[in-house]
Amino acid sequence: MDFAYTPKVDELRAAARRFLDEEVIPVESRYQREKAEIPMWETPPVIDELKVKARERGLWNLFLPAHREGLTNLEYAPIAEITGRSPWIMPEALNCSAPDTGNMELLHHYATDAVRDRWLPPLLDGQIRSVYGMTEPDVASSDARNISTRIDIDGDDFVINGRKWWSSGAMSPRCKVAIVMGLSNPDGPRHQQQSMVVVPMDTPGIEIVRSTSVFGYADSGHGGHAEVVYRDVRVPRENLLGELHGGFAMSQARLGPGRIHHAMRLIGMAERAFDLMCERSLERFPFGKPIAEQGVFQDWVAEARMRIEQVRLLVLKTAWLMDTVGNKGAAVEISAIKVAAPQMATWVIDHAIQAHGGMGVSQDTPLAEMYEQARMLRLADGPDEVHKMSLARRELKRYRAATA
Amino acid sequence: MDFAYTPKVDELRAAARRFLDEEVIPVESRYQREKAEIPMWETPPVIDELKVKARERGLWNLFLPAHREGLTNLEYAPIAEITGRSPWIMPEALNCSAPDTGNMELLHHYATDAVRDRWLPPLLDGQIRSVYGMTEPDVASSDARNISTRIDIDGDDFVINGRKWWSSGAMSPRCKVAIVMGLSNPDGPRHQQQSMVVVPMDTPGIEIVRSTSVFGYADSGHGGHAEVVYRDVRVPRENLLGELHGGFAMSQARLGPGRIHHAMRLIGMAERAFDLMCERSLERFPFGKPIAEQGVFQDWVAEARMRIEQVRLLVLKTAWLMDTVGNKGAAVEISAIKVAAPQMATWVIDHAIQAHGGMGVSQDTPLAEMYEQARMLRLADGPDEVHKMSLARRELKRYRAATA
Amino acid sequence: MDFAYTPKVDELRAAARRFLDEEVIPVESRYQREKAEIPMWETPPVIDELKVKARERGLWNLFLPAHREGLTNLEYAPIAEITGRSPWIMPEALNCSAPDTGNMELLHHYATDAVRDRWLPPLLDGQIRSVYGMTEPDVASSDARNISTRIDIDGDDFVINGRKWWSSGAMSPRCKVAIVMGLSNPDGPRHQQQSMVVVPMDTPGIEIVRSTSVFGYADSGHGGHAEVVYRDVRVPRENLLGELHGGFAMSQARLGPGRIHHAMRLIGMAERAFDLMCERSLERFPFGKPIAEQGVFQDWVAEARMRIEQVRLLVLKTAWLMDTVGNKGAAVEISAIKVAAPQMATWVIDHAIQAHGGMGVSQDTPLAEMYEQARMLRLADGPDEVHKMSLARRELKRYRAATA
Amino acid sequence: MDFAYTPKVDELRAAARRFLDEEVIPVESRYQREKAEIPMWETPPVIDELKVKARERGLWNLFLPAHREGLTNLEYAPIAEITGRSPWIMPEALNCSAPDTGNMELLHHYATDAVRDRWLPPLLDGQIRSVYGMTEPDVASSDARNISTRIDIDGDDFVINGRKWWSSGAMSPRCKVAIVMGLSNPDGPRHQQQSMVVVPMDTPGIEIVRSTSVFGYADSGHGGHAEVVYRDVRVPRENLLGELHGGFAMSQARLGPGRIHHAMRLIGMAERAFDLMCERSLERFPFGKPIAEQGVFQDWVAEARMRIEQVRLLVLKTAWLMDTVGNKGAAVEISAIKVAAPQMATWVIDHAIQAHGGMGVSQDTPLAEMYEQARMLRLADGPDEVHKMSLARRELKRYRAATA
Repeated sequence: MDFAYTPKVDELRAAARRFLDEEVIPVESRYQREKAEIPMWETPPVIDELKVKARERGLWNLFLPAHREGLTNLEYAPIAEITGRSPWIMPEALNCSAPDTGNMELLHHYATDAVRDRWLPPLLDGQIRSVYGMTEPDVASSDARNISTRIDIDGDDFVINGRKWWSSGAMSPRCKVAIVMGLSNPDGPRHQQQSMVVVPMDTPGIEIVRSTSVFGYADSGHGGHAEVVYRDVRVPRENLLGELHGGFAMSQARLGPGRIHHAMRLIGMAERAFDLMCERSLERFPFGKPIAEQGVFQDWVAEARMRIEQVRLLVLKTAWLMDTVGNKGAAVEISAIKVAAPQMATWVIDHAIQAHGGMGVSQDTPLAEMYEQARMLRLADGPDEVHKMSLARRELKRYRAATA
Repeated sequence: MDFAYTPKVDELRAAARRFLDEEVIPVESRYQREKAEIPMWETPPVIDELKVKARERGLWNLFLPAHREGLTNLEYAPIAEITGRSPWIMPEALNCSAPDTGNMELLHHYATDAVRDRWLPPLLDGQIRSVYGMTEPDVASSDARNISTRIDIDGDDFVINGRKWWSSGAMSPRCKVAIVMGLSNPDGPRHQQQSMVVVPMDTPGIEIVRSTSVFGYADSGHGGHAEVVYRDVRVPRENLLGELHGGFAMSQARLGPGRIHHAMRLIGMAERAFDLMCERSLERFPFGKPIAEQGVFQDWVAEARMRIEQVRLLVLKTAWLMDTVGNKGAAVEISAIKVAAPQMATWVIDHAIQAHGGMGVSQDTPLAEMYEQARMLRLADGPDEVHKMSLARRELKRYRAATA
Repeated sequence: MDFAYTPKVDELRAAARRFLDEEVIPVESRYQREKAEIPMWETPPVIDELKVKARERGLWNLFLPAHREGLTNLEYAPIAEITGRSPWIMPEALNCSAPDTGNMELLHHYATDAVRDRWLPPLLDGQIRSVYGMTEPDVASSDARNISTRIDIDGDDFVINGRKWWSSGAMSPRCKVAIVMGLSNPDGPRHQQQSMVVVPMDTPGIEIVRSTSVFGYADSGHGGHAEVVYRDVRVPRENLLGELHGGFAMSQARLGPGRIHHAMRLIGMAERAFDLMCERSLERFPFGKPIAEQGVFQDWVAEARMRIEQVRLLVLKTAWLMDTVGNKGAAVEISAIKVAAPQMATWVIDHAIQAHGGMGVSQDTPLAEMYEQARMLRLADGPDEVHKMSLARRELKRYRAATA
Repeated sequence: MDFAYTPKVDELRAAARRFLDEEVIPVESRYQREKAEIPMWETPPVIDELKVKARERGLWNLFLPAHREGLTNLEYAPIAEITGRSPWIMPEALNCSAPDTGNMELLHHYATDAVRDRWLPPLLDGQIRSVYGMTEPDVASSDARNISTRIDIDGDDFVINGRKWWSSGAMSPRCKVAIVMGLSNPDGPRHQQQSMVVVPMDTPGIEIVRSTSVFGYADSGHGGHAEVVYRDVRVPRENLLGELHGGFAMSQARLGPGRIHHAMRLIGMAERAFDLMCERSLERFPFGKPIAEQGVFQDWVAEARMRIEQVRLLVLKTAWLMDTVGNKGAAVEISAIKVAAPQMATWVIDHAIQAHGGMGVSQDTPLAEMYEQARMLRLADGPDEVHKMSLARRELKRYRAATA
């Protein structure tokens, strides 16, 4: 285990941190103001300005291993952490926000030349956004085998029928393309039933029904979380990603790096909450002494620091494993960080809220909205319980083998 | 300790439950729809229809001991629990919602005849709403002695200057009157520094600045949570409530019943969440068997049931103590339910959310918004930590006396 | 729900409390000293002295509904709580200690006249002790159906073969009789497979193998926890309790009151720990102020008080339900207190230990040994998880019926 | 951060693991048997046999940086983890057990030549044992400044008067020497008040009063935890360690590596408990399927794995920091692992106990005794709360500086 940051990474971290402090934090209130003024689902103009600045500073598409200098998962992780400190602005400003990152990787690796040439450049340029159509309202889709959207072959076309929700970003007018997973081979072997296809959002038969909110937040600046109906949506066969019926494996491959990104951004959120809570604690004097000197608060500070440090090390180890032995070898750890990071982040942010009193739940700090993001990640991509079960089974297998 | 429900209470409970099931639950989606369509801060029309129906059924102003049959705290408690099952609709439909209930009690007991006659009848009639101006943004107001709004005597008038926030309901056009607490005697003895005055909302000098949200929710149907500036706001001396400089004692007296109401409504919310989670668990089959048969979920059900039962008994005991030995004799218990009820409710609702997957955080169930309500109550009227400290000090006093 | 203590109960409570304070607490160190000096497994002489005194004060066999004044479960509960404050001495001094209480009830209700006349009087007199042979080392006996000890009918006799452990008290030379549960009808319907028989401890074929300890404690003053082998142990048919193959129902009936007793004694232990922790907190001054004034400690005090009160109310409600609607109607609550009481008690005692520093884990306070007792009760009579599962299933049944 | 194990360490780890599996685990029951048969406080003979074998295998005194190959903290950490899997046997078999390790380091660095030559060789040879006299019964000694034992200068001698307890190992007849900390300069500056002296155990005036137990365990095989009175105990001035009045700094320096050792051994205990719990789960079938397939148990397995991994990474990082930037630079982390490791270990072991049912609390597995060890470490060397407070203050200082 070697988690040392190389000089290259240290430089990027410093650059990212400067960008955060100089450009991002100062415009957070402007972002909120613009979001309230523009038509719902549109992108606040400040984002586009930041994109230009980020690109000038070389902070662009860093998530992509194939990009420029090619960061490994371990190298990108600390950058992702920094972006999490301003989670609605900085990831997008660096063109490193979900679900586009995972979608770009899928297009890069698995699209046909024609499809890749059509969609990857504008995504890499940050001109358009994309959506990942996986979760469905009518089934327990934490078990991918339950997915019921159909992708049928009809001559030279695929025909898609089904209903997806939590299609994050799809409400945005900038969202131009979807990657949709569906059942192409219902009677095939267990992990050979699904395919993934690329679907332009203006294809006839796509209906965007509504957006679901997360607690009271619409996430409108990021295009919300759409419910999308596909009715006889027809795309040519070249729009297939990878192998026919090979969707399950691609969806799993997509998960690994995404988990690192989410987990590191959650650590960034937790660090931001930690800062806010410590700063606040020095300014408020209920009952005659600053909150910072009250025993219960100090206990929170210590617990928060211990939890953050532990999760960060676990995520870095996971990234290092993915880089050295691959996603398979890191399977236990990938499950573990899926659970441990949001657990930690909700704990830290919730206590930061509590330390702020009424202000903590309001729009006057980023805490309440951060809480919502972290809480959602205990559900997104399968509830914690599913990942713990899978982690446990993997662990128990070792003993089963030993006793057999 | 005798918590048995009298026949009168059993009848009212049955009537309240019928009203909930027949009239309230069926219009919950209509309420949400209307709220989205009407101008922000207005009251959805369905509420007014329900008020008429509730009144016809004799379910009106039940909170008020002085009212009609005169329910005790213990008798009203189970009614409050039932209203908590639909917390945005049913309390208001029964004219039993905060902060109006506490305000009506203050007016009833402490207002001069003129002021009482002016404001109490329309409040008892549900024609207008009221606001309670206590919390302030600039100080740690969980310690009431920190309050900095000034109430100065000037001839025959009081002159009010200060800034309040979390003035719940004040954004509503129906909100016509405020009860404001402020510093009238800054150099007086510790609990003789504050006064309470009645302030019509159309008095010159009142500016409603904005509303704070709670986790992304505006609580628009209830008039939000306003930040209100008072600049040289002038009211006649007859608008004083109770004794001059006697505000602190009244604010404490106001708390007792309010805590019972909040706690019981939280139990109602938890029971609703429990129902939703159990029902859902029978309908979803991830990994081949219903959620209801999965061990971790059963553990949640058992924990939830144990927690709900214990808190309910504690609240009933507190109500019984208040009825029999008064607020002072129930001081430890009043602090305890302030902490225990939201703790329990957030736990139960959070697990119900988790059992619903993505749907749980969305607008498709009442769970996420209930969570927000319960979470806010860990802060409203002082953070948990303050109440635990005060409970502990009271307990330790017994031992201090013994060793002295 | 009427939990009010009658004057009779108030008198008994006062008497029990006086006995605790005047006779029991003062001899606790003598009890420990004697235990260290006498041969292992014998009863410290101070116990016999206390028995005489308790009897003189009318504090004798109070657990037994059929006894004298006949206390209900609700009436006996507060007495059991007081005995729990000195759990190794006071229950036995009042002839109210497990497993004798449950065994006496079984003998009272289900033994043939001859067997009852032989064993009940000396037990009621506190001259001998008894054992309950239920748990087995080789099976998961939290599911009673797994019990494998055989009770075969052979002419006019029963012949017992099997191995029991956690036969509490059996190491004591005073232990003269066992009630043994075993398989008499292995192919019968599910709850008609077991019988219970009375077995004198001097019957040939009984071998006491060893005692198991709990954490490091031998529980030697109470006769330890024996592992007992039964090899062709023969008793006459009149030694049957109740119906042939009716053991399961009797074992369930035995549980209800036992749960109340255990739970209330745990509350007594928690109150004792609470006292010790609060007293200690006023005497120690690390870092310049008493522990009592440190925020984290105050948080523990508040949490402890809230938890104790809630569990006590839940147990009283359970006792009241058992008295009014019977064990069946109290099934959810009986499961709940089995889990909630030890959970609460281990929490409170563990924090009291922590507040004592090194002294807390040593023999200088009763805390460490109390912790062990409370911890064992999360396992005794089935681990918590089994009871939570059964509670959950009962709850879910309501919803299942509704949706069917 | 580079935690990779060098080939040298990998070799040592493999050797240690082989020793554990081949020599230690197989004699655990023999160790328990011998302990019961020999006079209390003596060392079971099997330990001496193992010492010979360990030495032959090159597994001897590995803790000592100055020894042979000189392991760094990071290099020794994984060896310490392995020894924790059999915590009563393996550390001593490798001559790596507390408090001797810390005492040997003190003698090595701070003793005069004469004293070092007299005591270090037999300790390094494992012929004698030693004791560290720090904690006192009459004061809150988690704050070292409260220590009240006097070390007065009288001519060429030091004269010691005071009472220590938790002097671990001092009941053993092999324990021949103590390092005692006491007040030599009560009016000096805050961290210049204490001195440390070397005191042969046969010096007149030393009285060993008794041993304190931990939960029910006497820890007799390791010489218990003695209460020791020093009455006019006289040693020559050459017995001073380091600087006069410099005891505080040495006591702090002693802590760092000790924390790593304790934390890694706790991880070893947790891994052993994890193994036992997983193995057991495959063998028991309550309610028709193995415990291993029950949801609640799987949840424990996942939680345990996540917690163990996180703490291990945190300890390794701490060791690496100590090796690279020294104890001062690792201060936050040293506090953190003091709290996090026992917290994790008690959690894991407690759940392993629960999974074993009654067997878990008995002498039939090492779990109950491991629990006691881990629980004691939440108090030894200062309760968790003290370390969290100090961690928090260090964190808050950063913000204080920023706002000043």
